[in-house]
Amino acid sequence: MNPLTCPLPVFDTETILMGHGGGGRLSADLFRNVFLPAFGNSILGRADDQAFLEIGGARLAFTTDSFVVKPLFFRGGDIGSLAVHGTVNDLAVGGATPLFLSAAFILEEGFPLECLRRIVSSMREAAQRASVQIVTGDTKVVEKGSCDGMFINTAGIGIVDTHLHLSADQARPGDVVLLSGPIGDHGIAILAEREGLSFEADIVSDTAPLHSLVADLLATGATIRCMRDPTRGGVASSCNEIAQTSGVGIQLEEKAIPLREEVRGACELLGLDPLYIANEGKLLAICAPEDAERLLAAMQRHPQGAGASRIGSITSANSGLLTMRTALGATRIVDMLANDPLPRIC
Amino acid sequence: MNPLTCPLPVFDTETILMGHGGGGRLSADLFRNVFLPAFGNSILGRADDQAFLEIGGARLAFTTDSFVVKPLFFRGGDIGSLAVHGTVNDLAVGGATPLFLSAAFILEEGFPLECLRRIVSSMREAAQRASVQIVTGDTKVVEKGSCDGMFINTAGIGIVDTHLHLSADQARPGDVVLLSGPIGDHGIAILAEREGLSFEADIVSDTAPLHSLVADLLATGATIRCMRDPTRGGVASSCNEIAQTSGVGIQLEEKAIPLREEVRGACELLGLDPLYIANEGKLLAICAPEDAERLLAAMQRHPQGAGASRIGSITSANSGLLTMRTALGATRIVDMLANDPLPRIC
Ligand SMILES: Nc1ncnc2c1ncn2[C@@H]1O[C@H](COP(=O)(O)OP(=O)(O)OP(=O)(O)O)[C@@H](O)[C@H]1O
Ligand SMILES: Nc1ncnc2c1ncn2[C@@H]1O[C@H](COP(=O)(O)OP(=O)(O)OP(=O)(O)O)[C@@H](O)[C@H]1O
Ligand SMILES: [Mg+2]
Ligand SMILES: [Mg+2]
Ligand SMILES: [Mg+2]
Ligand SMILES: [Mg+2]
Ligand SMILES: [Mg+2]
Ligand SMILES: [Mg+2]
Repeated sequence: MNPLTCPLPVFDTETILMGHGGGGRLSADLFRNVFLPAFGNSILGRADDQAFLEIGGARLAFTTDSFVVKPLFFRGGDIGSLAVHGTVNDLAVGGATPLFLSAAFILEEGFPLECLRRIVSSMREAAQRASVQIVTGDTKVVEKGSCDGMFINTAGIGIVDTHLHLSADQARPGDVVLLSGPIGDHGIAILAEREGLSFEADIVSDTAPLHSLVADLLATGATIRCMRDPTRGGVASSCNEIAQTSGVGIQLEEKAIPLREEVRGACELLGLDPLYIANEGKLLAICAPEDAERLLAAMQRHPQGAGASRIGSITSANSGLLTMRTALGATRIVDMLANDPLPRIC
Repeated sequence: MNPLTCPLPVFDTETILMGHGGGGRLSADLFRNVFLPAFGNSILGRADDQAFLEIGGARLAFTTDSFVVKPLFFRGGDIGSLAVHGTVNDLAVGGATPLFLSAAFILEEGFPLECLRRIVSSMREAAQRASVQIVTGDTKVVEKGSCDGMFINTAGIGIVDTHLHLSADQARPGDVVLLSGPIGDHGIAILAEREGLSFEADIVSDTAPLHSLVADLLATGATIRCMRDPTRGGVASSCNEIAQTSGVGIQLEEKAIPLREEVRGACELLGLDPLYIANEGKLLAICAPEDAERLLAAMQRHPQGAGASRIGSITSANSGLLTMRTALGATRIVDMLANDPLPRIC
């Protein structure tokens, strides 16, 4: 047994818990024990942020997300822009150029049309900014009390270069971990809005499309192994997934992880670890060591990567684990969370 | 003014009504006044059951639906099989071969895992039967009381022959309207289950995939103008949409419309018009008159078209309207409904 691991409590449950939607360990268990065995096929089995499909000679990426964020409007965005960015980003981090989106609404009876119009117009702007077209949709209405205002699902299709094979199983010892900017802004902005916390005004969601930043990175020709948007479960969960899938260790440097003072303060106040907090406009990239400098430079040249930093590296030691060298020099395991520290964040 | 039209009350509302999800006039208004102007592009503007996309030399169909059916399990199916069939059918009626599906779940905290497993296994069977792969998905959980058990969204991608241009704007005077079998079974089965009505045992949902029936029809080489799966809003709404989009009249023959005795009886009892009741495994096809006989014969040869019938024709008179010659020989307008006679049917 690896000296850094320790036996973890098993969450055996007969009902769905909030944690099954948290993007952490319970989510991964549900996928592995329920969805994957039933739907089982090699495309789904990759379990990356998008599926790659070969159709009629074209190589496509396909992805979906439902959005249940509460509240619907928050500093920096709303459920509509989030629903567009989320799907655009899951395509982009696979190296795909996002092209087409679907938009399906579940609306609660009595929902104000004025709010729907605002959300739809925010989706339009987000789609324009990301150069995608919303080409199909669906609208269902349920009785008052049967859903919480509105839920949106988007699915997206993008086109991918046939030479590109980004995947969570590609990380190798020696590789470098880059992060495009400060973490935790989205999750803390939502929490502040929801709970009416006083630091609300200072913290704004980072929700943004990543397609343009990704295009710049791909254009460098650098060897990128894998990219992720660290959403639910935060940077910690994304890194854990990559470490497990590639069978490598990931070691982060706490001092190198960009974090706004306001977010650090809010996390301390609330007892939250920013590594687990959701981001909606940040990019995590694993690349070959010889290309790390110029990839980081390309990130920093892009407005959305201005705060980018090299936050860690891939190791052969501690295979399957994420560790962090703390500011004080100690090394600790950063495990996948079982429960959900911040539900309904996206 | 056409002598058959009459001024209709305008539904101006500031909030979402159940009818906005009914697949009738309020649904169409919401699409035309809110979604289409915001997302506006020529692909969405077609407003058919699926979008056609040209990507990398391939011609694809893309569609999405959310499912909020209540109850989750019913005679003949469950929300899982429905979610697969619904999206497979929206691809198939565009002439596409369905290939790949996404599956996104919104689960209520406390939902029994056993029910989730049953539903997921029913999706697996439905996907196998329709020869599609579920390749990507998403799982969100909301607090108890924030959704009604579970909602599922599926999106789907299919491939279409570049020569095929099925669309609701293709109907021409003289064309023939074919229907693959008896109507209303799905809607009445759900209603019976929900309300605990006594005729429950006799009426079973017709939920089924249409890809194989459609493949047989396309293989005849007959000139098909347009196909629809008459789901929410029933045959009446689908025919109204085609009449409006093609700028033609559609005249149905009441006596020719297949209807099971049990469904007719239930509709009479409940004061419902079967023309507006949802079907989940029926196909409506408009074809050139010279091909009608052999297309009907091909339908009837397929197990899912055994009860097929020629139910009407396209006219130049009464442009934009659906009319029906009743059993007694009178002609009446069959308008689009504003409200939703049967909510949460799919
Ligand atoms: N219900 C499901 N059915 C099939 N696959 C699923 C399901 N839920 C999740 N998955 C798959 O699990 C993997 C992880 O999904 P997840 O939703 O965590 O990724 P993500 O969309 O990038 O994150 P987020 O939803 O936080 O934006 C993906 O490969 C996804 O396709
Ligand atoms: N919220 C929306 N945004 C964009 N387009 C929408 C939206 N809702 C519906 N549409 C479009 O309106 C048209 C009709 O949609 P509708 O859902 O009634 O068709 P359907 O899926 O065939 O029917 P059903 O949902 O009953 O199975 C389609 O072209 C669809 O893409
Ligand atoms: Mg996502
Ligand atoms: Mg992602
Ligand atoms: Mg629909
Ligand atoms: Mg349809
Ligand atoms: Mg549909
Ligand atoms: Mg997801």
